[in-house]
Amino acid sequence: MIALGGNAMTASDGSATPEDQRRAVEGAMRHAAALIAAGHQVVLTHGNGPQVGNLILKNQLAADVVPPVPLDWCGAQTQATIGALVLNALDGRASVVVTRTLVDPADPAFGDPVKPIGRYFTEAEARRFEALGQTWRRFERGWRRVVPSPEPLQILDAPAVAALMAAGFVVVAAGGGGVPVVRGPDGRLTGVEAVIDKDLAAALLARTVRAARLVIATDVPQAVVGFGTAQARPIGPITASELRGLHAAGHFAAGSMGPKVEAALRFVEHGGDRAVITSLENIAEAVTGQAGTVVRK
Amino acid sequence: MIALGGNAMTASDGSATPEDQRRAVEGAMRHAAALIAAGHQVVLTHGNGPQVGNLILKNQLAADVVPPVPLDWCGAQTQATIGALVLNALDGRASVVVTRTLVDPADPAFGDPVKPIGRYFTEAEARRFEALGQTWRRFERGWRRVVPSPEPLQILDAPAVAALMAAGFVVVAAGGGGVPVVRGPDGRLTGVEAVIDKDLAAALLARTVRAARLVIATDVPQAVVGFGTAQARPIGPITASELRGLHAAGHFAAGSMGPKVEAALRFVEHGGDRAVITSLENIAEAVTGQAGTVVRK
Repeated sequence: MIALGGNAMTASDGSATPEDQRRAVEGAMRHAAALIAAGHQVVLTHGNGPQVGNLILKNQLAADVVPPVPLDWCGAQTQATIGALVLNALDGRASVVVTRTLVDPADPAFGDPVKPIGRYFTEAEARRFEALGQTWRRFERGWRRVVPSPEPLQILDAPAVAALMAAGFVVVAAGGGGVPVVRGPDGRLTGVEAVIDKDLAAALLARTVRAARLVIATDVPQAVVGFGTAQARPIGPITASELRGLHAAGHFAAGSMGPKVEAALRFVEHGGDRAVITSLENIAEAVTGQAGTVVRK
Repeated sequence: MIALGGNAMTASDGSATPEDQRRAVEGAMRHAAALIAAGHQVVLTHGNGPQVGNLILKNQLAADVVPPVPLDWCGAQTQATIGALVLNALDGRASVVVTRTLVDPADPAFGDPVKPIGRYFTEAEARRFEALGQTWRRFERGWRRVVPSPEPLQILDAPAVAALMAAGFVVVAAGGGGVPVVRGPDGRLTGVEAVIDKDLAAALLARTVRAARLVIATDVPQAVVGFGTAQARPIGPITASELRGLHAAGHFAAGSMGPKVEAALRFVEHGGDRAVITSLENIAEAVTGQAGTVVRK
């Protein structure tokens, strides 16, 4: 299972044109294709932050004319657009599964939205959106919408992923962490406005389909202890219990390296053979354990 | 194979809210669920006209702020949003495959865009969009963008559909006719701005996965000879050659019943057992041949 960051595929400020995005996906897929050519069975997942940010913005700008669609629809939309780019780039036995992720409607995250999405706005603009029921917070660079990021409980479409893997497909799944859905008191499934951490969803999907290895591709070659300090030290091979200790001691930033470390730990702690955090360029080496922060039991 | 009209699931003027669309899909899926419960292996495809119209409009309204995405991306987006609604409604062993349809870059349709999409605009607005490279035409109710509607040559993701069918899934595929792609002179696949007729794509997918029956669900219970005249006569059971004759004689409107009749004919002429054109409410009866315009060899 390879989890690709949304920023690995497009500019994080959402300014990338569709053509930019296509080229970025083609670049990322050259690395994935090397793995596939080497005979590995590959499942890909990907982030979608910049893309979802753009979709939200379009919804807001057009809201007087076109009924806006909720955040979960925007996430679904990016699964198909990024997925189709991946399929065109791989041009082989590959398939994109629209993937829903079950979350708990009672997840405390719904009462405490912390995940920033979309672009920075002025306070005046933020206040206007707040009046529409959204939550906005001030960050260093301006105001940004924040949304709930609940725990992924179940990858509802994992059976389809497993069936396609068994049939020899490279599968693209759980893009953007999956489309968040809840099961209501009436037993029915409905989408819910939230963003699921794509690395945590990848770890859950990897466990569900019994992947042997989870590779989390990001902007840096390794996780770092004491990041930003004079004692900064990149982490190479490490045991899950050792890394769990560093994580508990607060070495990894929430919303950045933190969830990647947590995802790697969950995968290994639940029986996965090896999880690796590294940069996109290193994913082939990561699979063989020769690059990145390599977490084992 | 069941092909559901986009209008069967939402208001054709694009005014439906996401909640309206969810309810409409749930309604449509009650009919599909009856078929699944009766033990039929079901592949679903769906239109996306109103939904794509809204996405185009959002792109246009936000174009100064967010890089617009091309038409093929909009089509992909609707596969995921409508697909996720279908999955939530069915809540069982079902999966959505993001589906690309190969078209010929030399298809004459690219030189003669005739398929109207999106809303009606004033002439002044149409002229403004024409200046951006789009093609607009005047219709009775106003100006509307027209796009190429090339022939579907191959459902590129049919192998994934077949693999999921074999694994017992209800498969949702080729939504909106599939995401149109071309193979360039360099051999690479890229998306192309076009709209593929969803019924023709459904007929091709049905043939490719060797479906026994193709049901085209629309707004009317049967195709009609002499539609709008005093001699109007609904068509029940009919042979392919008889229907081909009526079609050649111009009985079915282009852009309306015409492509549905053509899709039904192609399916039966290429070995399909039976194609039925009927209304959404009748799809269960259609499968057993007891409703609609039933086309057989």
